[in-house]
Amino acid sequence: MQTISLIQLGLGGVGRSLVRQVLNLRRWHREKYGVRLRYVAVCDSEGAIVSTDGIPDDVLLDALEWKISGKGLKDHPAGYCQNDASAIVDVAGTKETVVVDVTASEETIPALLLAIRRGYGVVLANKKPLTGDMEVYRELKSGQFLRYEATVGSGLPVIATLQRLLRSGDRVCRIEGALSGTLGYLMSCLQDDVPFSEAVRMAYKLGYTEPDPRDDLGGVDVARKALILARDMGYDLNLEDIALDPLYPTGIDGISITRFLEAISALDGKFSRMVKEAFLDEKALRYVASVTEGEIRVGLESVPRSSPLGLLRGSDNLVAYYTSHYDKMPLVIQGRGAGTDATAAGVLADLMEFRGR
Amino acid sequence: MQTISLIQLGLGGVGRSLVRQVLNLRRWHREKYGVRLRYVAVCDSEGAIVSTDGIPDDVLLDALEWKISGKGLKDHPAGYCQNDASAIVDVAGTKETVVVDVTASEETIPALLLAIRRGYGVVLANKKPLTGDMEVYRELKSGQFLRYEATVGSGLPVIATLQRLLRSGDRVCRIEGALSGTLGYLMSCLQDDVPFSEAVRMAYKLGYTEPDPRDDLGGVDVARKALILARDMGYDLNLEDIALDPLYPTGIDGISITRFLEAISALDGKFSRMVKEAFLDEKALRYVASVTEGEIRVGLESVPRSSPLGLLRGSDNLVAYYTSHYDKMPLVIQGRGAGTDATAAGVLADLMEFRGR
Repeated sequence: MQTISLIQLGLGGVGRSLVRQVLNLRRWHREKYGVRLRYVAVCDSEGAIVSTDGIPDDVLLDALEWKISGKGLKDHPAGYCQNDASAIVDVAGTKETVVVDVTASEETIPALLLAIRRGYGVVLANKKPLTGDMEVYRELKSGQFLRYEATVGSGLPVIATLQRLLRSGDRVCRIEGALSGTLGYLMSCLQDDVPFSEAVRMAYKLGYTEPDPRDDLGGVDVARKALILARDMGYDLNLEDIALDPLYPTGIDGISITRFLEAISALDGKFSRMVKEAFLDEKALRYVASVTEGEIRVGLESVPRSSPLGLLRGSDNLVAYYTSHYDKMPLVIQGRGAGTDATAAGVLADLMEFRGR
Repeated sequence: MQTISLIQLGLGGVGRSLVRQVLNLRRWHREKYGVRLRYVAVCDSEGAIVSTDGIPDDVLLDALEWKISGKGLKDHPAGYCQNDASAIVDVAGTKETVVVDVTASEETIPALLLAIRRGYGVVLANKKPLTGDMEVYRELKSGQFLRYEATVGSGLPVIATLQRLLRSGDRVCRIEGALSGTLGYLMSCLQDDVPFSEAVRMAYKLGYTEPDPRDDLGGVDVARKALILARDMGYDLNLEDIALDPLYPTGIDGISITRFLEAISALDGKFSRMVKEAFLDEKALRYVASVTEGEIRVGLESVPRSSPLGLLRGSDNLVAYYTSHYDKMPLVIQGRGAGTDATAAGVLADLMEFRGR
């Protein structure tokens, strides 16, 4: 039996789902894999609960309720005030520790680098540490155990597949993907002749978008995912190098959400024309991230209707790898690329690979 | 730098491609992964070349030419006569050894079991050891390092994805797949109104089928792949338990290939009707392997035309996983599921996972 100690940074939706899954699957992991996962620390941005002997289940579950009710760990009876995750890694880490980052913050980077230097495992759902400074990326990658499957396509095996292809020596020439469920949903609406502004308003009301829909429409989140793939392919690129084409003009950045949702009606005609032109050309309009020969493009593209991306409907993610062995027809991975439970499951699958180290 | 010693059983098409890839990628593997792969033994059914110091490149390359010219290793200047791979594993194996089985034979099983007992790594492209006796399956799976990605879908990450899902604790309710490129090609022909017998004759002439096309049409190869998935899902099943529906009546088993290719014209009407009925029902005819709740079915099925399997055209393989997290829309892996180079690359990706052990 191997015991793996977890230090978890972040107790948002994905973080809470992960805690629940770890507790619920304890017997499965013990009996099937001979592994015991236990929490030695959970942290939010201002507080933490730490116990190097393992945090008891009832304390963990209570902390989840505490967070759901909107309170911070610093005020929890078992918690204390801290805003330095490095100190916690320093105190609670051992060789059998994995630091799990399920935040969306850059502030975890020092703690992650400390974990890497100490030889601990690191598992990320957080894209920021891998998409900022190239030096940070390199230092993280130099670690003994780093996994980050959930950063691209949630629980889909997008990174694992790329790593397999690279290990096998296959030459990955191009990766093309639909990496945003929200934008995929919008593209399907456009294809069904729904006006752009109406589709956005619908997605907003249904809760498919970020609280501010511009965070989806701007494409930066997709760009970060593409950058992770590109860097893994060996390209020395940064966010600024990406040819990023947002779905709305930057001129309407400084207004309220309500006014924004009205203002984009002005774009309906343009998108409607683009969809029709694509259709006449036997193509379909998609929001595509592509990585080719050191170049990343993120934006609207007309793709052949019979291609994997052209056949895609709804909010599924899709990644197509064109390689020496998959040249005419790509290797394709497709499925839901969002959802707190699926994302947490992706993190958990990564964690379990620490087994036997 | 870690040195991994390879004992390779089999020097057919996949085996030869693997040797070439290992030699060609030596620098890539050393510089990027800190791993040196070297051959200590290569075997065919009657002979072997063994050198515990590592077989020199020129000898390996010469052995490949030797095999291509139709001669056996027992007659090669550097080779000797043997038909007991266990003896070679016994002599040439060390803790840093991986035994690679790229044969299609059951005779390698004792050598594989010996390797497992000694704690060596085992990588299989050979389906037979995993689809026969359940005890053999269990003993192989009990090993410290066993990989067999290339047994299903060639280089596609079908097994790796299933293992990830299982490790994460996601409940895999159903797997559905098109696991034969040849039968996929035939189904596409039928959908394009080509008569069944003509499609088979075309595939035969183009070299898409096994030397005897009944080996494809019988579905046993697909059944073996489905069995590997089912056993990994935890089901205690054997080949005999599979509801297998071949594409031709067993009555025409005992005739020559030429007569067989004529005789199947009698089936054209039946298949043509099935395709039309499926079409009217908004469905498409596919040769499907499905694993559900301890039951394996392999045979023709009408699937919704808009489902992943229904949208599939040509000879690509496709595997759809329906799980707790991918319930309405499955997680899908698609791509070429055949080819000696892609299969060898799948074996090589497995091999490289031995790294760090």
